[in-house]
Amino acid sequence: MKLARFAADGECRIGVITEKGVAPIDDFSTMLELISAGEAGLARVADAVQRATVRPLADIRLLAPIERPGKYLAIGMNYGKHAAEAARLGIAQIAHQTWFNKQTSCLSGPFDDIDPGVTEKLDYEVELAAVIGRAAKHVSERDAPHHVFGYVVANDVSARDWQFHSPTFTMGKSFDTHGPIGPWIVTADELGNPHDLGLRCFVNGELRQSGRTSDMIANLWDQIAYLSQAFTLDPGDLIATGTPEGVGIALDPPRFLKPGDVVRCEIDRIGVIENRVSSPRTPAAA
Amino acid sequence: MKLARFAADGECRIGVITEKGVAPIDDFSTMLELISAGEAGLARVADAVQRATVRPLADIRLLAPIERPGKYLAIGMNYGKHAAEAARLGIAQIAHQTWFNKQTSCLSGPFDDIDPGVTEKLDYEVELAAVIGRAAKHVSERDAPHHVFGYVVANDVSARDWQFHSPTFTMGKSFDTHGPIGPWIVTADELGNPHDLGLRCFVNGELRQSGRTSDMIANLWDQIAYLSQAFTLDPGDLIATGTPEGVGIALDPPRFLKPGDVVRCEIDRIGVIENRVSSPRTPAAA
Repeated sequence: MKLARFAADGECRIGVITEKGVAPIDDFSTMLELISAGEAGLARVADAVQRATVRPLADIRLLAPIERPGKYLAIGMNYGKHAAEAARLGIAQIAHQTWFNKQTSCLSGPFDDIDPGVTEKLDYEVELAAVIGRAAKHVSERDAPHHVFGYVVANDVSARDWQFHSPTFTMGKSFDTHGPIGPWIVTADELGNPHDLGLRCFVNGELRQSGRTSDMIANLWDQIAYLSQAFTLDPGDLIATGTPEGVGIALDPPRFLKPGDVVRCEIDRIGVIENRVSSPRTPAAA
Repeated sequence: MKLARFAADGECRIGVITEKGVAPIDDFSTMLELISAGEAGLARVADAVQRATVRPLADIRLLAPIERPGKYLAIGMNYGKHAAEAARLGIAQIAHQTWFNKQTSCLSGPFDDIDPGVTEKLDYEVELAAVIGRAAKHVSERDAPHHVFGYVVANDVSARDWQFHSPTFTMGKSFDTHGPIGPWIVTADELGNPHDLGLRCFVNGELRQSGRTSDMIANLWDQIAYLSQAFTLDPGDLIATGTPEGVGIALDPPRFLKPGDVVRCEIDRIGVIENRVSSPRTPAAA
């Protein structure tokens, strides 16, 4: 199934994407509630969709398919050629997986604008992101698939100047609106193997990134095993699995995003998110 | 006021700490709801406390005084002598503030046990932490005080081996139970100046850290101004303001925490949290 959150008539609702549009589901008021209901929740949705009145996508606005979860974690330098381009920029290769946070406050919808804020080095990163289903603690690679609810396309929008303020990356990965995800969650049973998907990023129609998830250095099961040794991954948590080569800062010369640019991220069998870069929003008067 | 969350009779409740114990407040079911209600919320609490039946602290269990907020951010190397001891361990001094995340899933109560989990280098860090009140975006140092709801004592428990898996610190700062805070929130109006407080950490009664918040390199107002240039700080977000020198890893030889140890963190005019290190919990069968 493809599960969406959408706004219509002033309300936020949950729905199932069908060939004709979105079928609103009233059994759950939040995606997290649906995820937490497990298999039984999905069964209720599959039943409810039979009785729902489908609305055309043109009549609604798709939202980030999960409300702010507890964590939004992302791995760096997890595709070989991207790790090589990062190394040229001075980011050391290390033996362990490199994890950082995107603050959940940066999450935004699949077609929402990206606000540059105060950065002068705005960049894109297309990534496959997993949504955790069952809580995971001390989970093996082999059992990791049982803890994934589904998948979304993510753009790990990055403010490169602020990212390199410190080796922790914290400041430049989480500007407000720098976490577009969507367009919906494709459930794990529908997607099947997440490690054989093409993913691409276009800026104003020009192909900038093109890779395959089979080229991850640590695959998603390795990632869940590693993270869950340290702490619990909770239902709804987002795990962004890395970006392939071709980010703007690594081009020669670098090519950063500017107001008016349109960034399109797509992943086979999941879908497309497309975000326009707005003018920087004026800081509120102090 | 001193605002607490506590468990009694199988329920989680909000209360006000008085000389005789805790006065339960039924006007709000979560601390975040109270914080979001602003000045009016505090006024309602001040009124409700007059009619409440106070319960002795011995009859209840204090919980982390805020439920999982959106963010738990912490600054590194923010006291001069601690920055110097960190430099001896190979952590570079940088021009900007160094921010990292503690995952909100690590939060635990002021007297809860600390589970070492899989680390062999368990360490303590006493810190003053601020709780955000009004949302903050592009806030100046001068206006920053208006965005703080109150203060807690925090122990930034750290798994040093995992912390240094990557320069982002992500893996070793957030083991489950490694975020004890409390014992309650002292409201900003009651505390006054947060930059003139003594803070101390004891292990089994032995003084390990002793500093004053006046020795911060970037004070809390600088911190809020810097963070809020990049992203919005939301009501309930936690900001840990750094630790003074004396952490276990920097002693010669290093002295890490072990099961049975009791760590006491205290800050003038806020209070004390005290956490016993348990045996590592057995990983659940895969």
